[in-house]
Amino acid sequence: VTNDIPQMQTAPLSALPQGFRFAAMNCGLRKAPNLDLGLIIADEEVAAAGVFTQNLVQAAPVVLCRRHLQKAAPRMRAVIVNSRNANCATGEAGMAAAESTAQAIAREFGCDPEQVFVCSTGVIGIRLRVERILQAVPTLVKMADRTVEGFGGFTRAIMTTDTRPKWAASRCTLAGRTIRLLGCAKGAGMIHPNMATMLAYIVTDAAISTPLLQRALNQVVSGTFNSITVDGDTSTNDTLLALASGAAGNRTITKADADYRRFVSALENVCRSLALQIVADGEGATRVIEIDVRGAANDDAARQVAITIAGSPLVKTMFAGADPNWGRILAAAGRAGVKIDPCRADIYLADVLTCRGGVEHAFSETRVHNRMLRDFVPVRVELGMGRGRACVWTCDFTSDYVHINAAYRT
Amino acid sequence: VTNDIPQMQTAPLSALPQGFRFAAMNCGLRKAPNLDLGLIIADEEVAAAGVFTQNLVQAAPVVLCRRHLQKAAPRMRAVIVNSRNANCATGEAGMAAAESTAQAIAREFGCDPEQVFVCSTGVIGIRLRVERILQAVPTLVKMADRTVEGFGGFTRAIMTTDTRPKWAASRCTLAGRTIRLLGCAKGAGMIHPNMATMLAYIVTDAAISTPLLQRALNQVVSGTFNSITVDGDTSTNDTLLALASGAAGNRTITKADADYRRFVSALENVCRSLALQIVADGEGATRVIEIDVRGAANDDAARQVAITIAGSPLVKTMFAGADPNWGRILAAAGRAGVKIDPCRADIYLADVLTCRGGVEHAFSETRVHNRMLRDFVPVRVELGMGRGRACVWTCDFTSDYVHINAAYRT
Repeated sequence: VTNDIPQMQTAPLSALPQGFRFAAMNCGLRKAPNLDLGLIIADEEVAAAGVFTQNLVQAAPVVLCRRHLQKAAPRMRAVIVNSRNANCATGEAGMAAAESTAQAIAREFGCDPEQVFVCSTGVIGIRLRVERILQAVPTLVKMADRTVEGFGGFTRAIMTTDTRPKWAASRCTLAGRTIRLLGCAKGAGMIHPNMATMLAYIVTDAAISTPLLQRALNQVVSGTFNSITVDGDTSTNDTLLALASGAAGNRTITKADADYRRFVSALENVCRSLALQIVADGEGATRVIEIDVRGAANDDAARQVAITIAGSPLVKTMFAGADPNWGRILAAAGRAGVKIDPCRADIYLADVLTCRGGVEHAFSETRVHNRMLRDFVPVRVELGMGRGRACVWTCDFTSDYVHINAAYRT
Repeated sequence: VTNDIPQMQTAPLSALPQGFRFAAMNCGLRKAPNLDLGLIIADEEVAAAGVFTQNLVQAAPVVLCRRHLQKAAPRMRAVIVNSRNANCATGEAGMAAAESTAQAIAREFGCDPEQVFVCSTGVIGIRLRVERILQAVPTLVKMADRTVEGFGGFTRAIMTTDTRPKWAASRCTLAGRTIRLLGCAKGAGMIHPNMATMLAYIVTDAAISTPLLQRALNQVVSGTFNSITVDGDTSTNDTLLALASGAAGNRTITKADADYRRFVSALENVCRSLALQIVADGEGATRVIEIDVRGAANDDAARQVAITIAGSPLVKTMFAGADPNWGRILAAAGRAGVKIDPCRADIYLADVLTCRGGVEHAFSETRVHNRMLRDFVPVRVELGMGRGRACVWTCDFTSDYVHINAAYRT
């Protein structure tokens, strides 16, 4: 059950993997009763993998997560996340805040601090009121349970400008054992390849070794989370974590065999669904645009063209107005920094050929305009240079994006 | 008299260089009486230089201008410009349209077609109604004169989404002779380094050889037109042309001597003024932001950081709201693709230190907010890595940008 556009506010109990509990509360970072603190705890030590922002400015919790992952990847116990404050550009005090949070969980829980991941999202450069988090930790740990409400609360506690919680579930069968994967994410602004402003967590009861879990995560991230863009701004806090409890009792995946491939496929479904939900809930967005570039010299070139088109403000505003102005797509392709021949370019807008060989191909403006009003609009660009291909997703750029971001702090 | 924020709608007669005439009319591309066709003619053959878009998708007139410049740079006679239609992605018909326009001017004028520059700006991918231009040419050529109205008409005929004409004048004295330089430009959207959607024309009565004129133009363009960004979209039609009549009677500049340096300085003043006017009139813009990056490893690195900050939608929307959220500036610097150490970064917002060594430096939010409401807001980023420096200009990103671009064609 992959859930591309969730009708349900939270995952059903049957989607929850064995071996994890969830909790969420208001600890006073946001105005009560808004949730601002979430927790995932594992019943036993679990394998973990992570992918982090490429931005050189990295929040203290990102530095801490990288370090803890390196030290304790096969025996992690918990993930704690606060929203409202990114704990970034906060200097030594910020690092001390992240560390004391990990220590508080560890103390409550009887584990090493390095078995705890700490994440933050929100405004940059303001001191985190960590004392409020520390005070809340004992209650938070006691609350944790394997319930629909617990998981649902977690998905809401990590939201910032998101308008709705994002979750996706998948399952696969490995030698008769049902494996569950459940993910959730927050996104909205600062979304761009190389891990955007985005936090995502995937828990699974699959038994898989730490190296293979990391490999699987690396493998799926490029076609999912790294193939979306909302505004071109990569963030300081992006974190994707996967935890695998092994509670499903399958034979532990330790090499890239058929079981591994089935697991990767299920993991990819969850990640793609979350990525698309993030784009669909992009700040101010009203629709998702798929940019499918084919016929580039190679896949990297295709990706470069697709990302440039997907990131163009002129292209994105054109979709806000459902204006079939294919020339902007061609112009964006032309400045992507890879060799293309405009005379060979075909452009399909909402499945209608609008440009053939670099010039307009007669089409009904009304028909294309009406199709562009839909929630999901596919764009296909055929470059005629080779066999390279890439597909990325973006959203339209409306005046609401500006309203949301013009005074985020105030 | 450089004119950074022109109070006057057009240049005074005293600013018009000797040797050029101007004309403008409505030829039916836009709704009358809006001007849509402009002409500059030189009384004699003049030296010319040009800089063009780096976009691989290039409009037919850009291809034509490059070719004519190569063939006839020391003996150009005319520039004709239409707005409303970019004549781009229009295939062979588009090329034929540009050529027939040059021929029509040449016929009327008794010169070679290659002595004529042809420029277009407007929507991409729609056939240009060149027959309307051809019909208008005889009248247009007859109208041309050396008057305030002629030049003023030209500056308005080239506008697209610009809200006001842009012009700048400068002068210098070379061995007792007064040299006049007069420029005009159109911009507004699709403005980004490497020649944005922008047309700019500079006429001067200086006597300067073609190679030196081209060298001067190349020299000033990087710190002026290539140091502004409105929306990150480079265009298919960007063209900057300079024409030098020699009518001022100075000793012809043929080498990089003191006269040359004085000329370059005057040229740079005109170009900087036009560039700043373009940013100030950016689509939806309410203020100009200067991003001055210092202390980078080298000038290229500084430029890369400055451009990334200037292009960040999160930074630009923050200025729309006058929100002193310096963390977004630091985060943008961190993803610029050059090595920086966030712990050494100082950020001055509107001349107030807001971030020191990568963390917040106590400041009055109200004071900085009030300064950010001004028309011109300086930002200084000190990276502490070396002596590299760069300065670029951008504008704030308001919801009006979206309104202007959501349905440009309709």
